[in-house]
Amino acid sequence: MPTQRANGWPGLIEAYRAYLPVSDQTPVVTLHEGNTPLISVPAIASEIGKNVKVFVKYDGLNPTGSFKDRGMTMAISKAKEAGSAAVICASTGNTSAAAAAYAQRGGLKPVVLIPDGYVAMGKLAQALLYGAKVVAIQGNFDQALEIVRAMSETYPITLVNSLNPYRLEGQKTAAFEVVDVLGDAPDWLCIPVGNAGNITAYWRGFKAYFQENRASHLPKMMGFQAAGAAPLVLGTRVYEPETLATAIRIGNPANEALALQVREESQGEFNAVTDAEILAAYRMLAAQEGIFCEPASAASVAGLLKVKDRVPANATVVCVLTGNGLKDPGTAMEQDGQSFHQGVPAQMDAIAEIIGIGS
Amino acid sequence: MPTQRANGWPGLIEAYRAYLPVSDQTPVVTLHEGNTPLISVPAIASEIGKNVKVFVKYDGLNPTGSFKDRGMTMAISKAKEAGSAAVICASTGNTSAAAAAYAQRGGLKPVVLIPDGYVAMGKLAQALLYGAKVVAIQGNFDQALEIVRAMSETYPITLVNSLNPYRLEGQKTAAFEVVDVLGDAPDWLCIPVGNAGNITAYWRGFKAYFQENRASHLPKMMGFQAAGAAPLVLGTRVYEPETLATAIRIGNPANEALALQVREESQGEFNAVTDAEILAAYRMLAAQEGIFCEPASAASVAGLLKVKDRVPANATVVCVLTGNGLKDPGTAMEQDGQSFHQGVPAQMDAIAEIIGIGS
Repeated sequence: MPTQRANGWPGLIEAYRAYLPVSDQTPVVTLHEGNTPLISVPAIASEIGKNVKVFVKYDGLNPTGSFKDRGMTMAISKAKEAGSAAVICASTGNTSAAAAAYAQRGGLKPVVLIPDGYVAMGKLAQALLYGAKVVAIQGNFDQALEIVRAMSETYPITLVNSLNPYRLEGQKTAAFEVVDVLGDAPDWLCIPVGNAGNITAYWRGFKAYFQENRASHLPKMMGFQAAGAAPLVLGTRVYEPETLATAIRIGNPANEALALQVREESQGEFNAVTDAEILAAYRMLAAQEGIFCEPASAASVAGLLKVKDRVPANATVVCVLTGNGLKDPGTAMEQDGQSFHQGVPAQMDAIAEIIGIGS
Repeated sequence: MPTQRANGWPGLIEAYRAYLPVSDQTPVVTLHEGNTPLISVPAIASEIGKNVKVFVKYDGLNPTGSFKDRGMTMAISKAKEAGSAAVICASTGNTSAAAAAYAQRGGLKPVVLIPDGYVAMGKLAQALLYGAKVVAIQGNFDQALEIVRAMSETYPITLVNSLNPYRLEGQKTAAFEVVDVLGDAPDWLCIPVGNAGNITAYWRGFKAYFQENRASHLPKMMGFQAAGAAPLVLGTRVYEPETLATAIRIGNPANEALALQVREESQGEFNAVTDAEILAAYRMLAAQEGIFCEPASAASVAGLLKVKDRVPANATVVCVLTGNGLKDPGTAMEQDGQSFHQGVPAQMDAIAEIIGIGS
């Protein structure tokens, strides 16, 4: 990669304006999202061998800590262009944070619906600090989803849940960035799959670039679901999805039909990874590559390692890391604490012995 | 700013190699740190008026979530070049995370010393997950600092605390990025001050660019300390520093002499901001600009607002936000929960009333 100076990445709408449904009239609401690092992960590549090159697209370095910012800069800009004064979503996680940040920045009022009795305040603290109005309803998550959809049809408030069509448009820019940096599409794209919006968006981006010859080929799209929340692998809805990878704990993907089309068109696959495999990849990314991601993000790497025997020799593989590990401090704290030594005398030789160095 | 595509920022050593003490023999250990967004903050600017333009340098979007990555890519690369197999620091916060991530990525063993009885595991979870060996000694933080220094002189282990000279070299690249993006130096640079390393590093960067005519002038360096930990404002060591802005809770700055020189050379100032002022700026950044930073980071904005009457008309001001708000979920959760409504009936009209919209 050439030497360069910082040149002020303007955010993904300005960078990829020609590919997005915006005009000069669109008020661009941006936090300079996008242009996240594509980082080589040699320790993971060496697990595969065969001269395979592996990179991670570290989208946790977006402004609110997840890839949701890509869609939200579009959704909020378009809502503002349409004259909307408020936006609404049902979310207990990354969507609520992104919606709140962009809405407030754009001068729109963000509303987040969640099921009552939901107690993980840590996940909501970010949205609340950004200024979201959070409403816990007497009902479950599906009911919250239904209400936000109905409210957006009845009241002057814009829906920014995954049904909002602009979200995927913004998200497809991640594929553009991958191709722009690599100089071509990767051979495989490994990605965590929950609602199946992001895999759909990436595919849309790769196809757009391929059609104008910015990429010589299309990647095989390899989607990975958590074993306890794998409706696309099982071919049937999962009524009680369960996985520690909360960002992909979805039993009834909103974009199921689109995702199945991506699999067919890209000759791709959906596979499941267990929570143990996800956590192993999560720890490996941190301890061997220096990259701290959300547990759900690690599903892409766990999946790649699971099917590594089928990776073609000399292939270039990109694994998508959708969120920042700092979003979920609890999981980090629960990992192996064997490297924590307490009550050690304040003496050099005692410490040297513990850390295993001699003078 | 011109339209552009992603072009694969290579990390700050490659980008600013000509300004850094590296050679072709230096093994560059990078997570593609740097090139963080410079984001306009119009709500803060409008508090000042006078056609002042205000930007924040959001260094919380570095790979481990703080500006420490800038120094650590240098410190670890140079330690590896020197043949070191391990690095050591005393830190309970951002330094330990950065040291652990870069050391592990570079194949060096990271060791973190902390005082015994330190219970805020959340702050250490990141370093532990990256694979640091954490040693809690029977002593206080000053003793931990003393021991890591002594150990680096006795054993084959490299000190990566703030005394490591390469840290400031890496950190000065943030000033390069500001000038490269703005096209010139800002008139004021507002920055939180704890150990006073970062203000020293920025000044070094601005001076280097000024000397080769990349900037037409030098900024006034405005350092802000927390009122309970303001040795540079008081002119005397603070033995029991106290502030919720833990990243700048330092009573005896390692770089005091350098910082006083920066103040003199730049005709700058050190001022103190209270924890209440810090929290007000922290909430304002989140709720009005959509930017979530560590409490200590908000000291730069709190300080700017405190001295706003002295900002020259038409000035360009950059406030440095040193860390990601996700580093400190506790403070976010403790803020005002007035926007959280529980037990609401799952009915559109009840929800519409709460959020204040009519059909």
